[in-house]
Amino acid sequence: MESVSQPLRMGMVGGGSGAFIGPVHRMAAALEGIRLAAGCLSSTPDKAAASGRELGLPDDRNYPNWKAMVERERLRPRYERIDFVTIVTPNDTHYQIARAFVDAGIHVVVDKPMCRTGVEAAELAGAVKKAGVACAVTYNYGGYPMVKQARHMVRQGLLGAVRKAVVRYHQGWLASAVEKQGQKQAAWRTEPGRAGAGAIGDIGTHAENLLAAITGLRIASVCADLATFVPGRRVDDDASILLRLADPAAKAAAPVQPRGVISACQVAAGLENDLSIEVFGEKGSLAWRQEEPETLIHRPDGQPVQVLRRGQPCLCDAARAASRLPPGHPEGFIEALANVYRAAARAIVAGADGPLEHDYPGVEDGQRGVRFVEAVLRSAADQSRWTAVG
Amino acid sequence: MESVSQPLRMGMVGGGSGAFIGPVHRMAAALEGIRLAAGCLSSTPDKAAASGRELGLPDDRNYPNWKAMVERERLRPRYERIDFVTIVTPNDTHYQIARAFVDAGIHVVVDKPMCRTGVEAAELAGAVKKAGVACAVTYNYGGYPMVKQARHMVRQGLLGAVRKAVVRYHQGWLASAVEKQGQKQAAWRTEPGRAGAGAIGDIGTHAENLLAAITGLRIASVCADLATFVPGRRVDDDASILLRLADPAAKAAAPVQPRGVISACQVAAGLENDLSIEVFGEKGSLAWRQEEPETLIHRPDGQPVQVLRRGQPCLCDAARAASRLPPGHPEGFIEALANVYRAAARAIVAGADGPLEHDYPGVEDGQRGVRFVEAVLRSAADQSRWTAVG
Amino acid sequence: MESVSQPLRMGMVGGGSGAFIGPVHRMAAALEGIRLAAGCLSSTPDKAAASGRELGLPDDRNYPNWKAMVERERLRPRYERIDFVTIVTPNDTHYQIARAFVDAGIHVVVDKPMCRTGVEAAELAGAVKKAGVACAVTYNYGGYPMVKQARHMVRQGLLGAVRKAVVRYHQGWLASAVEKQGQKQAAWRTEPGRAGAGAIGDIGTHAENLLAAITGLRIASVCADLATFVPGRRVDDDASILLRLADPAAKAAAPVQPRGVISACQVAAGLENDLSIEVFGEKGSLAWRQEEPETLIHRPDGQPVQVLRRGQPCLCDAARAASRLPPGHPEGFIEALANVYRAAARAIVAGADGPLEHDYPGVEDGQRGVRFVEAVLRSAADQSRWTAVG
Amino acid sequence: MESVSQPLRMGMVGGGSGAFIGPVHRMAAALEGIRLAAGCLSSTPDKAAASGRELGLPDDRNYPNWKAMVERERLRPRYERIDFVTIVTPNDTHYQIARAFVDAGIHVVVDKPMCRTGVEAAELAGAVKKAGVACAVTYNYGGYPMVKQARHMVRQGLLGAVRKAVVRYHQGWLASAVEKQGQKQAAWRTEPGRAGAGAIGDIGTHAENLLAAITGLRIASVCADLATFVPGRRVDDDASILLRLADPAAKAAAPVQPRGVISACQVAAGLENDLSIEVFGEKGSLAWRQEEPETLIHRPDGQPVQVLRRGQPCLCDAARAASRLPPGHPEGFIEALANVYRAAARAIVAGADGPLEHDYPGVEDGQRGVRFVEAVLRSAADQSRWTAVG
Repeated sequence: MESVSQPLRMGMVGGGSGAFIGPVHRMAAALEGIRLAAGCLSSTPDKAAASGRELGLPDDRNYPNWKAMVERERLRPRYERIDFVTIVTPNDTHYQIARAFVDAGIHVVVDKPMCRTGVEAAELAGAVKKAGVACAVTYNYGGYPMVKQARHMVRQGLLGAVRKAVVRYHQGWLASAVEKQGQKQAAWRTEPGRAGAGAIGDIGTHAENLLAAITGLRIASVCADLATFVPGRRVDDDASILLRLADPAAKAAAPVQPRGVISACQVAAGLENDLSIEVFGEKGSLAWRQEEPETLIHRPDGQPVQVLRRGQPCLCDAARAASRLPPGHPEGFIEALANVYRAAARAIVAGADGPLEHDYPGVEDGQRGVRFVEAVLRSAADQSRWTAVG
Repeated sequence: MESVSQPLRMGMVGGGSGAFIGPVHRMAAALEGIRLAAGCLSSTPDKAAASGRELGLPDDRNYPNWKAMVERERLRPRYERIDFVTIVTPNDTHYQIARAFVDAGIHVVVDKPMCRTGVEAAELAGAVKKAGVACAVTYNYGGYPMVKQARHMVRQGLLGAVRKAVVRYHQGWLASAVEKQGQKQAAWRTEPGRAGAGAIGDIGTHAENLLAAITGLRIASVCADLATFVPGRRVDDDASILLRLADPAAKAAAPVQPRGVISACQVAAGLENDLSIEVFGEKGSLAWRQEEPETLIHRPDGQPVQVLRRGQPCLCDAARAASRLPPGHPEGFIEALANVYRAAARAIVAGADGPLEHDYPGVEDGQRGVRFVEAVLRSAADQSRWTAVG
Repeated sequence: MESVSQPLRMGMVGGGSGAFIGPVHRMAAALEGIRLAAGCLSSTPDKAAASGRELGLPDDRNYPNWKAMVERERLRPRYERIDFVTIVTPNDTHYQIARAFVDAGIHVVVDKPMCRTGVEAAELAGAVKKAGVACAVTYNYGGYPMVKQARHMVRQGLLGAVRKAVVRYHQGWLASAVEKQGQKQAAWRTEPGRAGAGAIGDIGTHAENLLAAITGLRIASVCADLATFVPGRRVDDDASILLRLADPAAKAAAPVQPRGVISACQVAAGLENDLSIEVFGEKGSLAWRQEEPETLIHRPDGQPVQVLRRGQPCLCDAARAASRLPPGHPEGFIEALANVYRAAARAIVAGADGPLEHDYPGVEDGQRGVRFVEAVLRSAADQSRWTAVG
Repeated sequence: MESVSQPLRMGMVGGGSGAFIGPVHRMAAALEGIRLAAGCLSSTPDKAAASGRELGLPDDRNYPNWKAMVERERLRPRYERIDFVTIVTPNDTHYQIARAFVDAGIHVVVDKPMCRTGVEAAELAGAVKKAGVACAVTYNYGGYPMVKQARHMVRQGLLGAVRKAVVRYHQGWLASAVEKQGQKQAAWRTEPGRAGAGAIGDIGTHAENLLAAITGLRIASVCADLATFVPGRRVDDDASILLRLADPAAKAAAPVQPRGVISACQVAAGLENDLSIEVFGEKGSLAWRQEEPETLIHRPDGQPVQVLRRGQPCLCDAARAASRLPPGHPEGFIEALANVYRAAARAIVAGADGPLEHDYPGVEDGQRGVRFVEAVLRSAADQSRWTAVG
């Protein structure tokens, strides 16, 4: 299904030439018919200017710094002002930039992790609520239709009570010290001051979000072990975490607390972007893997395995609404991110007022993600002691 | 890699509301930063108007019929005129529409099959040559990076001489008489006057193109059996074809003529879009499957199987240039089609003069495809006699 | 389930040192508790003697030639005489050896192809009927539990009427001229006088049997193309065949004759033993692949794909009876062959009198297989003309 | 490769009618040409007698209790005495039975876990050494050829130093309280007095052994969380464990201690026997999965993935020696267990004297497995505190 609304105008902070995720956001937005209208694409003014020109931004909206962008965009008339801003800068700047746009009444799409600390996250959440804007955090893996289908099936009770969830997120691109070889992505991601944390902050937080999105459970406490394998690296590049889970919607605690395991590793040499989840419930289990995103495996206890596929008519409404092509015509990463934009765009068009039911990861997800990382860091620093997620 | 050129202006004929492939073309074009500037989106004027409005076309470029579109667009100044037109109408109209735009000096992207007959195809090829325009035929599966990699490996001689190629293209969406239940796609595809042929024209032609793209060989003759399984259907819905192949670049015939098999079936109940190819050569074999397009299996004789993946640095230039995301971040159907647009756009920007080396399926592919279908129909009508591809 | 009957006594002709399939038969028999009691393991007396000694045969039952074996075994008292003989010699000798044992009233397990010609096959079939013995032809792939399950599902009508079956049997071991490098298996298989035919006789006949076993249909006529790719080879090493199928149980012909395709290739460099079948019916389809034999894919039209697995309680009786281990504890090739022995052993113990319902491939399968090969050879020699299977 | 030695004579304790693993051991032994010569197949004399008769044991070697079996077998002349005994009784009896046979100078094959406690394990190890007999513990998964190949590749340094290993062992058969429904296997496995522990003892110990077999590393300490999900169950049915690993052969500790994760779950509803391992090293990674045992995935950093397959000529000696069939002819669970028997048989035939290099899991593996389980139980009882493996 194509978007039929008038094209939204997007601003972008970060994502200039050499960036990885910025162009992906622009492609995802383009799929939804969203138009890049303004930007400050680099923290280096010259580079920002060049990048903006390359993307066809008019000079007066190709800003040298994000503060100028906030100031001038807020003053533009509604019909030409950016409808929202996408923030794809290094982690340490997310808070202040997002905060400024939110305070200016401009909707925000911000990359994960939303902030560096729980304190920042809480303040941003408060500001978002006060401003009445939409704030989407691009935990993009939840945008895959089959993840929505998995969430639906758990909610419908097809698994019964969830007992255990196992999430693996294994990448190999940091298996050697690429941050010392001019790899820009690796450079800031392994700099403690910019990234905040290593593998746990970069990909562990995706694992947390995926688990929460599908199971509806929250991580109550963690028992975590972090390691840094590459000599000279200054952040963790591997995380192994035991989890105890809780149901935020339950009136009473489960008789046995659900368990979980996360393995997040960026030195898994030879692996690409191997995020997978298995959820075991009383009546069956589900399995999904990001590298084969069109397929969801459902194993009902005592019956044949079912392979659900994107695009099938039997899927839930949310999965069908997030699908563009017939089954067998593969969709992928860009479409999943575009689904976050689609859902955010709906909220933005609707004004984002009131208690909207929205299908994108919001500030509450952003906040939970930051607290999870904090709890993991505390546990790891304290001999893997069980530590509550604040 | 994002497109950095000035956005091209696309026109579109066909592809209005209810269409399948039209919106996919628009999404693919959007990924490349191409803008829809004019259109005649339906053969029914009211529907055309409504569809164009929905997509934000200005009234004066939202044409009621394609002839008006050709006339007026050709007269617009170069800086606002459409750079090319995409034709996504039913098969029987491809020729006349494409011909008109070509004669007007406007570049063309036309869906397959390019025409209904070899005669039409030859005439269009002549017109394209004379006008000096680009004409891309959207055999989109060749746009997948791993198909380009497969082609490269065959060309490099990694398989030695090709001995046999087996192509399966199995879909299930026509397993019952959906054309009688208001399924618009099924309706025109099963109407002899519009479609020209059934499964052989709709998907068999993709099989032919994929085989030729990867192996570099041409189908010299066919031995074909067609069937129509669904009661009341007026075109074939299944094709089984033996092939004899020839190398157009070889100075002498191979000592043993390479063989091939195509099974193209649209009543393969339960299957989605299961196009796959296996190529067996003297020194090894290749396998690729459209539903898992990121993976190419290479089996060198006597050595471990190799799994090549989109995005890996070891791939050939064409495969790398056709990739947008790092490995493990799935790309799919839209990106493959966008790669046809990317290559066509390069030719268009370059003026499409002279004997450009281009990486998109051109009129020669379109012509060959039409002749293949004709040969299959003749063979099937003559007790599967071996029939030369004209 | 283990066999609980008294161990049967097996004789073996062929299968001495250096043989491939002989030892596999002995392992399969051993799984069923069947004991090797006599043998003539090679046509070379010295080699026969040495092989028999190695396997622990007593000298007086370690025969120098198979004629002596028939003569002496038939005269032994029932309690020590071999219960049956397994014949695993090159193809050209199957008929005379099998005939001699059958005429002596000794049950027979004979490797495929059962004979070289339809005439031989008919004579053997007559002799078997007259002698009232069991004659199992080791089309072993039908012994896999999931093949039995597939057959059951077709019989139950879960697919509706079968429309098309596609069988691929691709191996790579003959991709180069290994028969000239001392590979014993390759040597006799590529000698026309011994093998009778090449790929079509060696593996094409398995494809035919698998198709018949699962669909219940028979191949009515073939349109075949054979090729010999390896220079100097004297038999075909590749076969591509179009099929028209018929239902032997139907009272009237189907409105549209079911179709089929077989690709059997022994020069598929890099492939192992890649036998697979897809069956498309009105209501759904089935897929099975020998290299992953524990899994059967069922795709009901319009519903999620189902993955049936060996050992699941939901399988049919025959599939469950052919299973030894719980699901997830892989069984394989030897177990499948052992299932042929298990079924044959039951018939043997039961005396093989009367019209026993048996679950092993019998003389009728052997006969059909030979006729299929003959029809293919005739069609290929006559420009792939449609040729009836006699 | 078939065994060519004189058939060994096997005794068996446990494994009578209704047992799961006993018959599997007999099938595995039969594949190796090993003959069941004596047994005490149940702790209930009547059942023992009936089971032995069913298997064709002579009355005087169909013992009513295992003590009688030890006494009488030790007195038989060497040429008829059992060569070894297989012990497949519930866990709590392994020690005393194995000890008695060992003390009688009879070689032993004992199911895992070898004993209940580290003290028992140490005593048995001492007795084995003193008696100079072979003692194989059936950690059968190490018998798969591709596990041997993985071990070889790690030893050869193809991965560089190992950084992390992740083992999942997920089964679903205990997802509900089957132990209360007459499932004999479930009954004793969930009885604390008989099993010793639940999932951790039954399958977690396999995970430990597989990790050690492939990586050559030892688990130095564990941080474990156990859970019992099924109401009324008296042992754990889920285990989640963080690991710190050490190299027993290294002269100095690694700069960063290798990490590991084990998830062992018997309530993974819908799963079969899903044991898998991933090993990440400096230069690449390996992945193997028991349900597809013929395949080993090797991912060298920065190069295409390699798929190694059982039977390929490029494999290491141990993998080739453990293979019976050509590639593509699936082998499975029984063959893997038969490989343990094959290796043990070689040691037995060789007299098991001296420091034989053997390729089966021995007392040292058994001992390590028991200590691992003990450490896990201690850690879990102490709030998942890091606990050294004794």
